[in-house]
Amino acid sequence: MSYQVDFEPLGRRLGVGRGVSILTAAQQAGVGLVSICGGKGTCGRCQVQVLEGQLSPLSETEAKNLTPDELASGYRLACQAEVLSDLRLHIPPHSLTATQRTQVEGRELTVPIVPVVVGCDFRLSPPTREDIRSDVDRMRDHLALLDYGDLIIDFAVLRQLSTQLREWGWSGTVGLRGREVVSFGPLGRKLLGLAVDLGTTKLAGYLVELQTGRTLAAAGAMNPQIAYGEDVMARIAYAMEGEEQAATLREAAVGAVNDLAHTLCTQSGHLPEEIVEAVVVGNTAMHHLFLGLPVRQLGLAPYLPAVSDALDLKAREVGLEIAPGGYVHLLPNIAGFVGTDHVAMILSTKIYEAEGTVLGLDIGTNTEVVLRAKGRLIACSTASGPAFEGAHIKDGMRAAEGAIERLRITASGVEYQTIGDAPAVGICGSGVLDAVAQLRQLGVLDERGNMGDHHRVRRTQHGPEFVLVAAGEGGNSGDVVITRGDVGEIQLAKGAIRAGINILLDEAGLSAQDIDQVIIAGAFGTYIDVSSAIVIGMFPPLALERFNQVGNAAGMGAKLALVSREQRARAAEVARQVEYIELTNDRRFVDEFARAMYLK
Amino acid sequence: MSYQVDFEPLGRRLGVGRGVSILTAAQQAGVGLVSICGGKGTCGRCQVQVLEGQLSPLSETEAKNLTPDELASGYRLACQAEVLSDLRLHIPPHSLTATQRTQVEGRELTVPIVPVVVGCDFRLSPPTREDIRSDVDRMRDHLALLDYGDLIIDFAVLRQLSTQLREWGWSGTVGLRGREVVSFGPLGRKLLGLAVDLGTTKLAGYLVELQTGRTLAAAGAMNPQIAYGEDVMARIAYAMEGEEQAATLREAAVGAVNDLAHTLCTQSGHLPEEIVEAVVVGNTAMHHLFLGLPVRQLGLAPYLPAVSDALDLKAREVGLEIAPGGYVHLLPNIAGFVGTDHVAMILSTKIYEAEGTVLGLDIGTNTEVVLRAKGRLIACSTASGPAFEGAHIKDGMRAAEGAIERLRITASGVEYQTIGDAPAVGICGSGVLDAVAQLRQLGVLDERGNMGDHHRVRRTQHGPEFVLVAAGEGGNSGDVVITRGDVGEIQLAKGAIRAGINILLDEAGLSAQDIDQVIIAGAFGTYIDVSSAIVIGMFPPLALERFNQVGNAAGMGAKLALVSREQRARAAEVARQVEYIELTNDRRFVDEFARAMYLK
Repeated sequence: MSYQVDFEPLGRRLGVGRGVSILTAAQQAGVGLVSICGGKGTCGRCQVQVLEGQLSPLSETEAKNLTPDELASGYRLACQAEVLSDLRLHIPPHSLTATQRTQVEGRELTVPIVPVVVGCDFRLSPPTREDIRSDVDRMRDHLALLDYGDLIIDFAVLRQLSTQLREWGWSGTVGLRGREVVSFGPLGRKLLGLAVDLGTTKLAGYLVELQTGRTLAAAGAMNPQIAYGEDVMARIAYAMEGEEQAATLREAAVGAVNDLAHTLCTQSGHLPEEIVEAVVVGNTAMHHLFLGLPVRQLGLAPYLPAVSDALDLKAREVGLEIAPGGYVHLLPNIAGFVGTDHVAMILSTKIYEAEGTVLGLDIGTNTEVVLRAKGRLIACSTASGPAFEGAHIKDGMRAAEGAIERLRITASGVEYQTIGDAPAVGICGSGVLDAVAQLRQLGVLDERGNMGDHHRVRRTQHGPEFVLVAAGEGGNSGDVVITRGDVGEIQLAKGAIRAGINILLDEAGLSAQDIDQVIIAGAFGTYIDVSSAIVIGMFPPLALERFNQVGNAAGMGAKLALVSREQRARAAEVARQVEYIELTNDRRFVDEFARAMYLK
Repeated sequence: MSYQVDFEPLGRRLGVGRGVSILTAAQQAGVGLVSICGGKGTCGRCQVQVLEGQLSPLSETEAKNLTPDELASGYRLACQAEVLSDLRLHIPPHSLTATQRTQVEGRELTVPIVPVVVGCDFRLSPPTREDIRSDVDRMRDHLALLDYGDLIIDFAVLRQLSTQLREWGWSGTVGLRGREVVSFGPLGRKLLGLAVDLGTTKLAGYLVELQTGRTLAAAGAMNPQIAYGEDVMARIAYAMEGEEQAATLREAAVGAVNDLAHTLCTQSGHLPEEIVEAVVVGNTAMHHLFLGLPVRQLGLAPYLPAVSDALDLKAREVGLEIAPGGYVHLLPNIAGFVGTDHVAMILSTKIYEAEGTVLGLDIGTNTEVVLRAKGRLIACSTASGPAFEGAHIKDGMRAAEGAIERLRITASGVEYQTIGDAPAVGICGSGVLDAVAQLRQLGVLDERGNMGDHHRVRRTQHGPEFVLVAAGEGGNSGDVVITRGDVGEIQLAKGAIRAGINILLDEAGLSAQDIDQVIIAGAFGTYIDVSSAIVIGMFPPLALERFNQVGNAAGMGAKLALVSREQRARAAEVARQVEYIELTNDRRFVDEFARAMYLK
């Protein structure tokens, strides 16, 4: 007896025998689950969520290690639960080993699948001397009998139709988007969709079967635009240099999405031309650069988008290499610095319909903040800078092998954990955050971020620095330090975020303690230690259980908009509903920002 | 006092003083009117039709030289009538000197101008720190105030909008096609349209001001596809050799239309980007090759078009270099060998609503024939071949300088007229037609086309030939002859046409004498001597006044579809209404064709 096990959102799938543990199945599928106790059930780290299917009964170990909420949501421990049927599992980001983490994981949300493109199989009677209808009329007349009346044929589909109809023996599968035929393939062809979160730094892509909503593959990639500027403003400045530069950025983004689509198809044994619809989300600058829209007005006050509407564009006009007649859908954006990715995040986290007061954050070089309170949705964007991605930090690096991602400073020294358990070569955002929090708690840093004395503090001509790891320790080749400058970068970043939060609260007439839930989205936000973030004052001091780290919520929102027309319509509604506050134009901002930079 | 005189459909225009004769005005404008008597009013050849404006009262000479019908239609003699106001004149093809003739002249038809794209001027209030709507929202909100609600912006327009709005001081003119913004230009920009008749041999193009329907320029050009095959079948065969060959033909056609648009714009002081809509008509093969549609199924029985629908395509997708967001409209076609040009011809000649029995012909390498009878429209296509264009004729040539275009064989010799009055270098279609008719009337040719004795007939190893012009005569450098083979080509061509006519009559249960009117369209049909065509049996023997040579009716139909949504809808209706008869599949054809080849 063999059962299919689907690991969402990774899109991995394999067949296993009855009674095999999920942990074993995951290992066979190459899905790296955290399992510190080696499968004994004592660490409780290998949590998975069951979306569909049947497992062995709950063990005592599981009952002890999982909260009632987790149990109610279908969480199980992978080392304990055994496969008793076909399964669809969701692997939450925190259950994945660090080396396996990409930017694709997020919280899966189950919505009714109402795809924008539906498939229709047909077989035609071939032409005769008596029946000399045009090829289009022949196909359309037949589809009208199947209740698809009054169809129009996309021009690129039309260009191939006559040849392909004959090649495929007058049969085939059309993809219908409303009354438009957007794809034509051999009989029985499945229709695929592509969802992409086009981040300033990274891309996350998902290949989805449109009819079922099943994720066939997920993958991440770097945004090659990075070569032309680290953050959004640098990219805009580069694009403003001239048409050639703008075209370079456009081609880089489009090329990256095409490459990602190619990777996803290769992973899952499909062809890019089977993709009939794409949804791409990103911040407003990424959106504009991807589409080749002008960005000058986005880079200068008052920071206007060229367009805020949801767009349905022929993918070929954008340069995407999917089915020739396919569309790419862009969700609406809200403002120059609150883009379609934020709308997607609001969509997938359902903040828009939350009861109570909910704060949502997507932390990046720009951090979008949204507050759901008293039936309103209020949003702003803060320039938190690239410090959390390791930039402008002396020994900073991205979250790659050898990066210190967590640390604790004790009397006996610095305990730290690196990605891939490799020798420390630098420190990534979550590590820096921990370091600043620890140093503040130890009193090495004062409120203003000034560095006091400590035996690991040394004074250099550029100011004081705290030695986290000395050269040679644990196999690393050089020092890894935190400088006074690094602390300042973090102060700027967290100050901007906190100021945004405070202004939204003020706007709603609420204080921090009124917040029932904080949803933290984005790759960085998922891996930080929330208590460290509270210590340095980036987040308000709330009970830890009110925080919810949801992974790539923007990517998940893109997937929702891909597979559900209803969700797409809802996104448009959300964008209309959001009240946007432009912080650069807000009289409260300067004071709030100055106050929020303190390490309290 | 100076008045504007417009010469339609040539698109020439100039200012003249009050009281100047139209003939003088034409000479100043470079419009070559026939005037054999030199302006005395005795030859009656310089007819012009007044579309708008006021002239001096009718002179006695005019009353004598014009028929009551002509007078009722507003015809005047250019040498007699004097300008008393701004004028819009139509110059019928027969009034133009041969050297001036292109393939653009046709009968102008006045229809209410209801363009598909309408212009809208606007001035916006610029953004402020308080008013941070997206650029699209700003423009759309404003246009909604002007009652243009719910607009969508073409993607190419969108890509330029933000930059151009700022460049043009937040004002401009948009072209609206339904609810889509298809063009954006500086305030006050006129919207232009392009109508093209894409013939197998020649192109005719018209640049039109959309709001008024005024023709700004007209020009002809050769179809560069000729390098890849003389007739439709040869082109299809070439395209079937491979994708590269098909692309070559597509690019040749598209390039020719682009060149023509450029020429028209240069002539009239405009820019191609001011053209916001194009209509291109042509036979089904030209239509398919122009659009890059497959033609294999068009070249093999049962000769199916890929598509018969009217198409609205983004011009940029077709490769036309007009306004970035502009559309090209293709009228519907009827069958594999009855194309959009025939629909355009039916449209502009109004055959579709004619009372009585009307026969319409568009003579070319394929000749389309349509019969309006008993409320029906029945059409067929016959393969008349390229003989009328001078091909496959020993001394044949196109209608260019030095071509014998008319001739009469008398006892004293051969009287002939060449284009441009140049020494004879060959003979064009209308000349060959005259020659065969004359030889048949003289009895030199028998019913079967065999050549009997005559002092100008000489026998060669390839058969007999009749010497029309001997080398050295009248300054010509070589003989110009008509061979037995040439006669055979004409027999095939006229036989095919006559067989088509007879089968349509048979289908309607009528005989030739029932025909009230014969409309002959196309460049060749306009310049032939109808009585010669009757003598050889190409046309039924009807009174000459029942024949009406209308010039480029397809081009005129394209213009109608360009400036009138109502005419465009009517074209679709006409295409639906036409009953098509496939002659290659008709049991009557072989007999009719065999019989029609005789020279009776």
